Amino acid sequence: MNAPLSAPRRLRLGMVGGGQGAFIGAVHRIAARLDDDWELVAGALSSDPERARASGAELRIDPARCYSDFREMARAEAARPDGIDAVAIVTPNHLHFPVACAFIEAGLHVVCDKPLTTNLADAQHLQALVRQHGVRLCLTHNYSGYPLVRAARALVAAGELGDVRIVQVEYAQDWLAQPLEDSGQKQAAWRTDPAQAGPAGCLGDVGTHAAQLAEFITGQSPQQLSAELTTFVPGRRVDDHVQVQLRYASGARGLLWASQVATGEENHLRLRVYGTKAALHWDQESPNELTWHPAGQPAQRLTRGMASLPAVAAAATRTPGGHPEGYLEAFAQLYRDFAGDLRDLARPASVPGVDDGVRSLAFVETVLASASRDGAWTDLPSELS
Amino acid sequence: MNAPLSAPRRLRLGMVGGGQGAFIGAVHRIAARLDDDWELVAGALSSDPERARASGAELRIDPARCYSDFREMARAEAARPDGIDAVAIVTPNHLHFPVACAFIEAGLHVVCDKPLTTNLADAQHLQALVRQHGVRLCLTHNYSGYPLVRAARALVAAGELGDVRIVQVEYAQDWLAQPLEDSGQKQAAWRTDPAQAGPAGCLGDVGTHAAQLAEFITGQSPQQLSAELTTFVPGRRVDDHVQVQLRYASGARGLLWASQVATGEENHLRLRVYGTKAALHWDQESPNELTWHPAGQPAQRLTRGMASLPAVAAAATRTPGGHPEGYLEAFAQLYRDFAGDLRDLARPASVPGVDDGVRSLAFVETVLASASRDGAWTDLPSELS
Amino acid sequence: MNAPLSAPRRLRLGMVGGGQGAFIGAVHRIAARLDDDWELVAGALSSDPERARASGAELRIDPARCYSDFREMARAEAARPDGIDAVAIVTPNHLHFPVACAFIEAGLHVVCDKPLTTNLADAQHLQALVRQHGVRLCLTHNYSGYPLVRAARALVAAGELGDVRIVQVEYAQDWLAQPLEDSGQKQAAWRTDPAQAGPAGCLGDVGTHAAQLAEFITGQSPQQLSAELTTFVPGRRVDDHVQVQLRYASGARGLLWASQVATGEENHLRLRVYGTKAALHWDQESPNELTWHPAGQPAQRLTRGMASLPAVAAAATRTPGGHPEGYLEAFAQLYRDFAGDLRDLARPASVPGVDDGVRSLAFVETVLASASRDGAWTDLPSELS
Amino acid sequence: MNAPLSAPRRLRLGMVGGGQGAFIGAVHRIAARLDDDWELVAGALSSDPERARASGAELRIDPARCYSDFREMARAEAARPDGIDAVAIVTPNHLHFPVACAFIEAGLHVVCDKPLTTNLADAQHLQALVRQHGVRLCLTHNYSGYPLVRAARALVAAGELGDVRIVQVEYAQDWLAQPLEDSGQKQAAWRTDPAQAGPAGCLGDVGTHAAQLAEFITGQSPQQLSAELTTFVPGRRVDDHVQVQLRYASGARGLLWASQVATGEENHLRLRVYGTKAALHWDQESPNELTWHPAGQPAQRLTRGMASLPAVAAAATRTPGGHPEGYLEAFAQLYRDFAGDLRDLARPASVPGVDDGVRSLAFVETVLASASRDGAWTDLPSELS
Repeated sequence: MNAPLSAPRRLRLGMVGGGQGAFIGAVHRIAARLDDDWELVAGALSSDPERARASGAELRIDPARCYSDFREMARAEAARPDGIDAVAIVTPNHLHFPVACAFIEAGLHVVCDKPLTTNLADAQHLQALVRQHGVRLCLTHNYSGYPLVRAARALVAAGELGDVRIVQVEYAQDWLAQPLEDSGQKQAAWRTDPAQAGPAGCLGDVGTHAAQLAEFITGQSPQQLSAELTTFVPGRRVDDHVQVQLRYASGARGLLWASQVATGEENHLRLRVYGTKAALHWDQESPNELTWHPAGQPAQRLTRGMASLPAVAAAATRTPGGHPEGYLEAFAQLYRDFAGDLRDLARPASVPGVDDGVRSLAFVETVLASASRDGAWTDLPSELS
Repeated sequence: MNAPLSAPRRLRLGMVGGGQGAFIGAVHRIAARLDDDWELVAGALSSDPERARASGAELRIDPARCYSDFREMARAEAARPDGIDAVAIVTPNHLHFPVACAFIEAGLHVVCDKPLTTNLADAQHLQALVRQHGVRLCLTHNYSGYPLVRAARALVAAGELGDVRIVQVEYAQDWLAQPLEDSGQKQAAWRTDPAQAGPAGCLGDVGTHAAQLAEFITGQSPQQLSAELTTFVPGRRVDDHVQVQLRYASGARGLLWASQVATGEENHLRLRVYGTKAALHWDQESPNELTWHPAGQPAQRLTRGMASLPAVAAAATRTPGGHPEGYLEAFAQLYRDFAGDLRDLARPASVPGVDDGVRSLAFVETVLASASRDGAWTDLPSELS
Repeated sequence: MNAPLSAPRRLRLGMVGGGQGAFIGAVHRIAARLDDDWELVAGALSSDPERARASGAELRIDPARCYSDFREMARAEAARPDGIDAVAIVTPNHLHFPVACAFIEAGLHVVCDKPLTTNLADAQHLQALVRQHGVRLCLTHNYSGYPLVRAARALVAAGELGDVRIVQVEYAQDWLAQPLEDSGQKQAAWRTDPAQAGPAGCLGDVGTHAAQLAEFITGQSPQQLSAELTTFVPGRRVDDHVQVQLRYASGARGLLWASQVATGEENHLRLRVYGTKAALHWDQESPNELTWHPAGQPAQRLTRGMASLPAVAAAATRTPGGHPEGYLEAFAQLYRDFAGDLRDLARPASVPGVDDGVRSLAFVETVLASASRDGAWTDLPSELS
Repeated sequence: MNAPLSAPRRLRLGMVGGGQGAFIGAVHRIAARLDDDWELVAGALSSDPERARASGAELRIDPARCYSDFREMARAEAARPDGIDAVAIVTPNHLHFPVACAFIEAGLHVVCDKPLTTNLADAQHLQALVRQHGVRLCLTHNYSGYPLVRAARALVAAGELGDVRIVQVEYAQDWLAQPLEDSGQKQAAWRTDPAQAGPAGCLGDVGTHAAQLAEFITGQSPQQLSAELTTFVPGRRVDDHVQVQLRYASGARGLLWASQVATGEENHLRLRVYGTKAALHWDQESPNELTWHPAGQPAQRLTRGMASLPAVAAAATRTPGGHPEGYLEAFAQLYRDFAGDLRDLARPASVPGVDDGVRSLAFVETVLASASRDGAWTDLPSELS
C-alpha cells in the first residue's frame, strides 16, 4: 500500500472589513471554513483599533495579527514566513480598490467581494495590477458557485439549448422599500451612500449579480443596452430599481430588472433562458432544482444530485440529492475552487476573477450612461482586457 | 308563496367566423352556452357557402339562418322578429372592423374577439359608431373574467396594495417558435399575415392581453413606453417577440414582454404588481390562486372560493374552492355578464368594451412607433374617447 | 362535396333532485350543457310541489314536465314520444336507489351521482336491474373525466410505470371541521345524517372518490384492507376522517386517507403511484399537470395539451395546453362520453358504471367492517358481478 | 471600554467511523466545522490500521491520535490533558452501542448518529450509563436543527395550532429501489444487513426520522400503532417500505410511511399537521419555507428569515431570508447547540438526546411487534425513563 496521502496544509486567509455588525464578512468566513481549505489568521476587521481588536478576539485571531490599517497588514503579512496566502476584502464598495491595490502590490492573492470597484477605470487599473504582479483574484459572484448554475452553463456551452433567443433575468428584494438608511441600519446606510457604494445603488448591489449570472450561464455579454434607473424612496441618493433591455450580438434579446423595493421579495434572483432547442429556468430561492424544457417535450426537473448532470455539478456539491444545499455552500464553492487554483497555479482559473469585475463595471457604467440619456441604446465597451 | 320566478329567455346569438378548423369560435360557443344565458341561432361561419352550411349543420343552426355573407346576415337578422340579440365576431383580425360596422349599423349588439381592429383609426370609428347607434360591445379580453383577476382589481382599487410602484407582466408562448405558418396551419397562417392580423404579430395577439390585464388590475394605463419588436423566425412577416418598458403618470415603472417563441411556454400570462403596502402575483396557468404579499408579513395564498375575497370574485364563479375553474369559465363569465348588461341596459357595462379596444390599439400603435424609432420613449395618446 | 353532416339531436335529460339550494345539481346541469350534447327538459327537482315548480321555472323547464314525484316522472317520461333519454339523479344518497330503480324499470338510462347507493346489497340489486332492462348507467366519478387522469391510466395500462409497488391516495377537505350541520347548512345536514347519507360519512362522500381514482389509474382493486374511522367533531353521527391501509393481490401496498376536518384543505384529492419503472403524481387542485418520474431520470411535467400524451387525453379536452380546464370540464366529459355511449349502444361503456358503484360500496362496507374490528385486515369481496 | 471578549476555545472532537468511503462522517465534520465551535483532533476512523491512518492524514489529524481501536482511543483521549471533549459516533448502527459505552464510561461526551442502538434494551442501557457518568449525549436527529422545524414546534407549543387532530408524515426515498446491496455499494450493504443495521431496514434508517420529526413538532408521541413492513426487492433481508397508523392519547390520528423504493423520490421527508386552529406543512426538500394555514384564512408562506417567527428560528440560522440554508446548516445547528450545552452544563439540553433515542427504539420495536402480528394495534411502552 502507498503511504497515506496527506491533505495539503490549510491556506492562510486574512480579512479586511467584516468586523462586528457586518454581514458579508461572516458569510466569507463560513464559506472559507466549510470545506476546510482555509484558516483565518489575520485581519484588519475595522479601521477603529478597539473594534478591530475586539472583532479579532471574537474570531480567535492572534492579537498580533489584528491590524487596524490594511496597508500595514499587507506589508506585515507579506513579510511573515507564515503570512497569509490571500486576503478577503469584505468592506463597503469604495474600499475594494485601495485595499486590493495594497495587497496585490504586496504580492498577495485576493478574494474580493463584488462589485470589484465603484468605477470602470479603477477596475481596469486592478486588472493591470493583477497581471503585473502575477497574483490571482477571486471575485465572489457567489451565485456562480451553485451546482445547478454550473450545470446550466455546461448545458448551454454544449449546445443543448441551441441558440439563445431570450434572456430574462431579475433580482428582486424589498429590504429597502422603506428609507431604512434613515434608521441608521448599517447595511442600508453604506449601500445607499454614493460615497461608499459608488454611483449605482440597486444596480451595483444586485443588478450586477443578475448581469453576471446571465453572462455566466449563456456565455454571452450583451452588446447594447437601454436602461432606466428609478429611485422610489424619497430622499434616497441612489437608484433602488433598475430596468434594462439587452441586445446581444447573436441577435438574442433580453430583459434585466433588479429592485430593492419589490414588496415581499427576499432575495429573488431568477433566470430564464429560451433557446432554439430548449429553455432553462433557475431560481436562487430554490437552488437545488433546475427546470430544463426541451422544445416539444415535457419540462424536466433536474435536481442537484442527479448522476446525469454535467460533471461540473457533482464537483460542486457535498451532499446527495434531496439533502438541500444553499447559499453558504455555493459561496464556499468559490473558496474551495480558489484554494485549488492557488495550489495549482498552472491551471486555469475556476472562479470569477478580475476580468469579470471589469465587465461588470462596464455594465454598470453603460447602464448609467443609457439611463442618463433617457434610455438611449448604448454600446457596451467591446475591448476590456 | 309568490309565483315562481321564471328565468328570462335565453339571448339569441349569431356568430361570424368560427367555422370548421377555427379555434376561438368553439371557445365562444362553449362560453356562451356554459351559463345558459345564450343560444346560438344564426351564423356566417364561413364566407364559403358550402363550408358555412356544413359548419352550421354541425352546430344545429337552422339552415335558413346559415349565411355566407355577414352583411346579409346583419340585415336579415335585424329584420326578423326572432332575430339575434347580438353577434359574436370570431374572424381573423382584419374582418373585425367591417363585420362590427355591419352589425352595429344594423342596431345589433356585438361581442368581438380582441383586438378590436387592426389599427387605431378603425377602433375609434367603431367607438363613434357604438355611441351613435346606442348598442353595446363586449370585447373578449377573457382573462378579466377570472374571479381572482377581479379580486385583484378590487383589492388594488380599495387601496390595499398602496401605491403601485412596479408592474411586471408577461405573456409567453412557444407555438410559433418554428415557422409553423409555412406548414399551412390555419391559426399560424393568418396570425402571421399582416393583411389578416394587422401590422402587429405577437404584439397584437398576446401582447395586448398582457397590457389589458395590467391595466385592468392596476387601474392605470402607462403614460410613456419604450419598445422593441423582434422577429426571431426567419422569413416571418410580423414580430414574434416584444419587450416594452412602461412609465406611468403616478411614477410607477413596468416591464411587459410577450413572446411566441419562448420554448416550452404554453400560454403563460403572468402579472406581478408591487405596491407600497402589498404585492400581488397571478399566473393564468394556475388561475385559482392569487399570491397576496403584505409588506413585512408572510405571503398569503388566496384561493378562488374564499369567503373573505372581494365580492366580485364570488360573483364570477360557479364551484366551491378546490374545484378548479379555468379558461372556459373565465370566458363564459364575459358572456354571462354581457347577458346581464343587455337585460339591464341601464346598468354600467360589466365587461371590457369598445373603449378598452381603443386603448389597446393605441398601445399597439405606440409600441410600433417607439420600436420604429429604436425604442425612443413615446407618449401614449391621452385623449381616446 | 358530400352533404353536410348534421349533428345528431341533443339527448333529452331529466333530473331528480337539484332544486334550489342544491350544489351538485347545478354542476350536472353545466356539465350536461357544456358540450351541447344534452338538453334538460324535465325534472323532479324537489318533492315539494311548489319548490319543484319554482326550480323548474328557473331552469326554463316546461311546467308540464316539472314533477314532484319521481315515480310519476319515470312513468310519464317513458310514455312520451319526446320523453327523456336519461335521468340524472342528484339527490342525497339514500334516494339514489329508489330513484334509479324507478327509471331503470321504466327502461330509461341513468346518470347517477356517487355513491351509487348506501349499501352493497342495493348496489347489487341495481346491477342486476341494469342488466335485466338493458339500460346504461353512468356513475359520475367525475375525477376520471380529467384528461391527465385518463392519460395516467393509459400509461399504467401500457406498462410504462412497471409493476405498481406503492399507492398513496388522499382526499382532504376542511369544510366539516366545525359542526356545520348544527347551523342548518343543507349540504352539511344531509351528508352527516346516516338516514340520508348512509352509514359512511367522509368515507362515503370523498373516501370513495379516492378509492375509485386509485383503482381507475392503477387498474387494480385492493384485496385486503385495514381501516380506522374517526369522528373528530363532537356530536357528529358519521365519521369525518378515515385512514385505510391497502394490500393488493400483486403485492403492492397502499394508504388511503380522507378527511373533512383537515384544516385549510379545500378539495385536495391527490394520488401518487410508485412503480418499478416510473412514478406518477396527480393533484386535483392542479389538474392540468401530471408529474411523471421515470426511474433514474428527471421528473417530467406532463401538461394537458401535450401532443405526446396518450390519445385518450386529447379526446377529453377542449382547449390547447396552457388554457386551464377544471372540474366542470372533467364532469362534462362524462356527459359527453355517456352521450356517445347512448348514441352507439354497441360500443363498450366509456364512463364509470354500475359495476364501479358495486365495487365502491364493497369498499365502503369492508372499511366499516375492518374499522368495527379495530382495524383487522379484512378481505374485499372478490365476486361482485 | 471593556477588554475584548475572547471567543471560548474550540471544543475538541474525536470521531469513530467516517473513514474513506463513508457518507455521514463527512457530514458530521462539515457540521462541526461550520460554526467554528469544534476542531477535529482525533479519530478511530476505521478498524483497519492502514485505512485509519490514511483517513486521518486526509483530515490532517495528528498521526499519534489516529487510532484503529475505539476502546484504546477512549482510554487514551480521556487520559490526555488536551484530550477530546466529545466523540462523534458515525459507524454503522450495530457499533453505536459498544462505542458509546466505551466513551461514556471514559467520562466523555458523545455525539451519536441515529438510531442510538439497534434495540431498545441497549438504548436503555445507554440511558442509564449517561446518567451514571454525568455526560451529555447528542443524538443527531438533524432535521430538528432546521429553523422552520423549530418554529413549527414553537407555534404548536404556544397553542397556535389548537388541538392536533391529524398527523401525516412521510419519508420517501428511492435509492434502494433496486438491489443496490448486491453491487457492493457500501452504504447499501450495511444498511440492508441486519447484523449491522439491526432488524429494521427502512424503518430504522428513515422511518425513525419521520417519527422523531412528528414527535418533535407536535410534542406528542403516539400511544398505539398498527404497522406493516414490506420488502419489495427480492432477496433483501430487511424491510424497504413501512406503513404505520398512529393513535395518540389526545385522540389525534396519524399516518406515517417511509420507503426506500419510492421511485423518483430523493430524500422526501414531509410533515403535515392539522389542528383545530391551524395546519402546518413542512417539506425537507424546501426547508426554507413553512406553510401555515389558519382555519378560515388564507394559507401563509412563512420563510426562514421572517422577523415575526418564534425566536428559536432566528437563533438557528446564519443568513437572511432568501439566502437558502439546507441540510448541512441544520446538521451544524446541532453541533453549535451541543457546544453551547457543553460550555454551560447547567442549562437544559438543547438537542435531541439519549431519551429521544430510547423512544425511537421503542417505536421501532413496537412497529416490529405490530407488523409481526398482522398489524394488530399495539401499545407503545409508556415508561421509558
